[in-house]
Amino acid sequence: MSIQRNHPTITLLISCPDQPGIVATVSRFIFEHHGNIVESDQHTTNHHAGIFFMRISFSEEGFALTQSALFTTFQPIATQFRMQWSVHYSRQRKRVAIFVSKLDHCLTDLLWRWKSDELKMDIACIISNHPTLEAQAAMYGLPYQHFPIGKETRAIDQRHILDFLAGQVDFLILARYMQILEPFVVNAYTNQIINIHHSFLPAFVGANPYERAFDRGVKLIGATAHYVTANLDEGPIIAQNVIHCNHRDSVEDLIRKGRDVERLVLADAVRIHTEARILTFGNKTIVF
Amino acid sequence: MSIQRNHPTITLLISCPDQPGIVATVSRFIFEHHGNIVESDQHTTNHHAGIFFMRISFSEEGFALTQSALFTTFQPIATQFRMQWSVHYSRQRKRVAIFVSKLDHCLTDLLWRWKSDELKMDIACIISNHPTLEAQAAMYGLPYQHFPIGKETRAIDQRHILDFLAGQVDFLILARYMQILEPFVVNAYTNQIINIHHSFLPAFVGANPYERAFDRGVKLIGATAHYVTANLDEGPIIAQNVIHCNHRDSVEDLIRKGRDVERLVLADAVRIHTEARILTFGNKTIVF
Amino acid sequence: MSIQRNHPTITLLISCPDQPGIVATVSRFIFEHHGNIVESDQHTTNHHAGIFFMRISFSEEGFALTQSALFTTFQPIATQFRMQWSVHYSRQRKRVAIFVSKLDHCLTDLLWRWKSDELKMDIACIISNHPTLEAQAAMYGLPYQHFPIGKETRAIDQRHILDFLAGQVDFLILARYMQILEPFVVNAYTNQIINIHHSFLPAFVGANPYERAFDRGVKLIGATAHYVTANLDEGPIIAQNVIHCNHRDSVEDLIRKGRDVERLVLADAVRIHTEARILTFGNKTIVF
Amino acid sequence: MSIQRNHPTITLLISCPDQPGIVATVSRFIFEHHGNIVESDQHTTNHHAGIFFMRISFSEEGFALTQSALFTTFQPIATQFRMQWSVHYSRQRKRVAIFVSKLDHCLTDLLWRWKSDELKMDIACIISNHPTLEAQAAMYGLPYQHFPIGKETRAIDQRHILDFLAGQVDFLILARYMQILEPFVVNAYTNQIINIHHSFLPAFVGANPYERAFDRGVKLIGATAHYVTANLDEGPIIAQNVIHCNHRDSVEDLIRKGRDVERLVLADAVRIHTEARILTFGNKTIVF
Repeated sequence: MSIQRNHPTITLLISCPDQPGIVATVSRFIFEHHGNIVESDQHTTNHHAGIFFMRISFSEEGFALTQSALFTTFQPIATQFRMQWSVHYSRQRKRVAIFVSKLDHCLTDLLWRWKSDELKMDIACIISNHPTLEAQAAMYGLPYQHFPIGKETRAIDQRHILDFLAGQVDFLILARYMQILEPFVVNAYTNQIINIHHSFLPAFVGANPYERAFDRGVKLIGATAHYVTANLDEGPIIAQNVIHCNHRDSVEDLIRKGRDVERLVLADAVRIHTEARILTFGNKTIVF
Repeated sequence: MSIQRNHPTITLLISCPDQPGIVATVSRFIFEHHGNIVESDQHTTNHHAGIFFMRISFSEEGFALTQSALFTTFQPIATQFRMQWSVHYSRQRKRVAIFVSKLDHCLTDLLWRWKSDELKMDIACIISNHPTLEAQAAMYGLPYQHFPIGKETRAIDQRHILDFLAGQVDFLILARYMQILEPFVVNAYTNQIINIHHSFLPAFVGANPYERAFDRGVKLIGATAHYVTANLDEGPIIAQNVIHCNHRDSVEDLIRKGRDVERLVLADAVRIHTEARILTFGNKTIVF
Repeated sequence: MSIQRNHPTITLLISCPDQPGIVATVSRFIFEHHGNIVESDQHTTNHHAGIFFMRISFSEEGFALTQSALFTTFQPIATQFRMQWSVHYSRQRKRVAIFVSKLDHCLTDLLWRWKSDELKMDIACIISNHPTLEAQAAMYGLPYQHFPIGKETRAIDQRHILDFLAGQVDFLILARYMQILEPFVVNAYTNQIINIHHSFLPAFVGANPYERAFDRGVKLIGATAHYVTANLDEGPIIAQNVIHCNHRDSVEDLIRKGRDVERLVLADAVRIHTEARILTFGNKTIVF
Repeated sequence: MSIQRNHPTITLLISCPDQPGIVATVSRFIFEHHGNIVESDQHTTNHHAGIFFMRISFSEEGFALTQSALFTTFQPIATQFRMQWSVHYSRQRKRVAIFVSKLDHCLTDLLWRWKSDELKMDIACIISNHPTLEAQAAMYGLPYQHFPIGKETRAIDQRHILDFLAGQVDFLILARYMQILEPFVVNAYTNQIINIHHSFLPAFVGANPYERAFDRGVKLIGATAHYVTANLDEGPIIAQNVIHCNHRDSVEDLIRKGRDVERLVLADAVRIHTEARILTFGNKTIVF
């Protein structure tokens, strides 16, 4: 698998009602068109008849079908099994806009990982409601767009952002953006907006989680990366982690420790998203 | 320190308003009566004038004061600094009653650790609202008391338990007891009842945390040991830990993984409690 | 997947030179004989032409072939792809002998997990070079065989054990057995002997790892479960974990903390072994 | 404690033969000169008569002695108890040179933490045997000194570095410097050179630890921050951590995962070093 990772791959993400023959059919399809499978994973839920989820990657080199031919040739199989499906070419990097406010730790981390080719995505721009982090974007030669958000004008302000992004990006990262997104923004990027929340959800939903963690006297603090949905901090969780703390930690210490967890969890979530490893099911994720 | 650990020690737990001279006075007191300090830790909160907390241990061997003389000789210092204080002799093991229902994993683990001398306490008895785990108690030659709890008679039933325990025990462990304690029980053992809750509180307060964790699609599950107070699952947290999980884990898998976390967290909490390492402050703990 | 887990499954473990068509062929074989795949995982190494590894599980219910028919029907496929393969029926629990010396923590833990049906195996007997832990075996109604090992007579003594076990067991667990196995024992159970070593290998190979960890002043200690090979502590690693420690920890504290890691790591390794999730490749494992 | 953390403090680091009265004497000294103790920790080894270690911090505000008066007034106590001691004023930030080669992850991380005031030190310069990372230094406005190291001229080349640093810095960080230091450099900064080694020592001492971890098939990889001594990778360990890995991880994956561990472990070590929390004892550290 590893050697192929640097070779272009094509990945199918599939979900459909469970029934015998799905794996056989899909793997035969790939084989018949000269694809060599390099990774394959599947999962079936145990609800009712069961939903089947699959991620299957094969080398693009040698595969007999063009991208459009792949679509038309696979569609009959998808129809037969009532699949929801998508296809991802590793050569086609996803394009992203990173949203920030004034805190720079998540942004700096993402930019470094992107520069180091750890995160294989194209950053279209940095969007912020403050001019604060313009220098950080400049360090990496990236465009920085300042879109102030007014208390009364949030809907209009975010409409401007949406218009600005149109056609430019595939997904959004909220790297401590600190602004609630309007439903029309969320709906425009369903399961394509990754937020980092600075607590181990569902603990400390909402504002000031570190202060509340301090007041509650917890012995660990955490961070959660999740897709954004209409309900604040309730979208499908992609990744979570925690770090231990104790009575010596002030709120400032929790914030400092938490920054490290936030950065790692967000980077993890972004990496698996860009590698097309995530399927969603209700408010849950399947991470292959 | 280690070598002295097997030697008898005397430990003072102290809290008082912060002011200069406390450490100097207490350490001088110990020195003058020929105590050799083997461990010392302190903490000051940053609220207002600050509350000072201290745990100081010295070898009993060579110490010039008897237990009653220690009390009377130290009291003037305690009065001068307006201390709340307690003294703990390592030779005098705390006596405990372990409360269980039908699940045996926490009980089995505690009994093994006790038998292995990892937990230095005297187990007076196992109390249960079911006869289920009598054999486990018998394996270790421990008395098992079956106190059924009726839906309508909980107060009376728990009064019987309280009467039974009177004078027998210093603290209680709820090792997955699954019964809410009446306020008069909680008040009889303030900060002396350790409960294990099967979630990383404050997430999933209340019943069925694993089912709810599964439904929420979290990527880690945890356990919390805390002192029991009048408010369910809101007492001071002593220890917490988590374990990673993913979409492959069914509720049964979460329960299985969680058992390991519960056992470790509860054992940790019991050990530091028996070693007199915990001070409480509002609904928080200071663990030295 | 979860719901089927309680239903009987058949699992194929396969390794062979990588080439296109393996997944398609195997999944088609299962489909044609009315097997419903419930789990499937694969991996390809990047050495030379690549070795392909696969674990594929399907429900036994409804599968059209008997166990012997499965063998004969699948063999042509195996030959075609030059597969090494094995088949595992979840209904047929693996039989095990647990080897111990004087320390009881790993044994106690395994027995509790077995009793709780966490580990789906049949324990044929407990083997020991000391009579020390007979009571622990008795607690669970298990036969305990005392086979003393003489300094000069180890080969003969272990030959007796091997003869005793013949036909009784599928694999062995060394639960802190503290005796080196003769090559003829190792060869009789290739990749079927699980040992727990009390360090994070390759650190502290050999005797007294906790003492050496203490002397080196490490900040974490660990445990490693591995298959036993001719070379001490160098067999394929199945599972590893660590726990933090610090200058306060004496050797006794490291031993205490280490016991918890050893128990968890060994139980993990045994569980994945019994579920036929491990393939070996040189001195490495692939854990599906 | 927390509130005082932002206030200037004075910290004493003390080690001496254990005997009664040390804590009483030191705390009395601080009290008599109007210091308010904000943090205090101690440890006694169990070798022979025992060595006593102490770190005690008190607020500078209100303390009656000047820095030179503190020295002369405390010296008689130090002499009486045969102490090795040092004093650290939080207002006086330690000055550091960061040594790098071509890899930027540790450097970038340190610079960001320094800029964010997480690491309270003054960076005198970045030293490298390659010009590669000059831009990273420039991003933060820091001087970058390129000191090539010749195969035959290492001693002379490092002598130049030593001369250059003379009087400029208190300690050195080897942030993946990849060059062995000459003994005269090590001796010039005893226990003042922090190296990050990319394995959980003592596993994989020396070169290419990730390749060797891959070959050994370990299930976790780690990083170790330690003081540099004459013996490669054998100096006192300050901090260690690990991350899990599995058969899917190529060497490149291990390197990627390892970068995160290296960064966190090195930052941890640097923070506790700058806060004067480390005492050494033979080849071990005591971290208060």
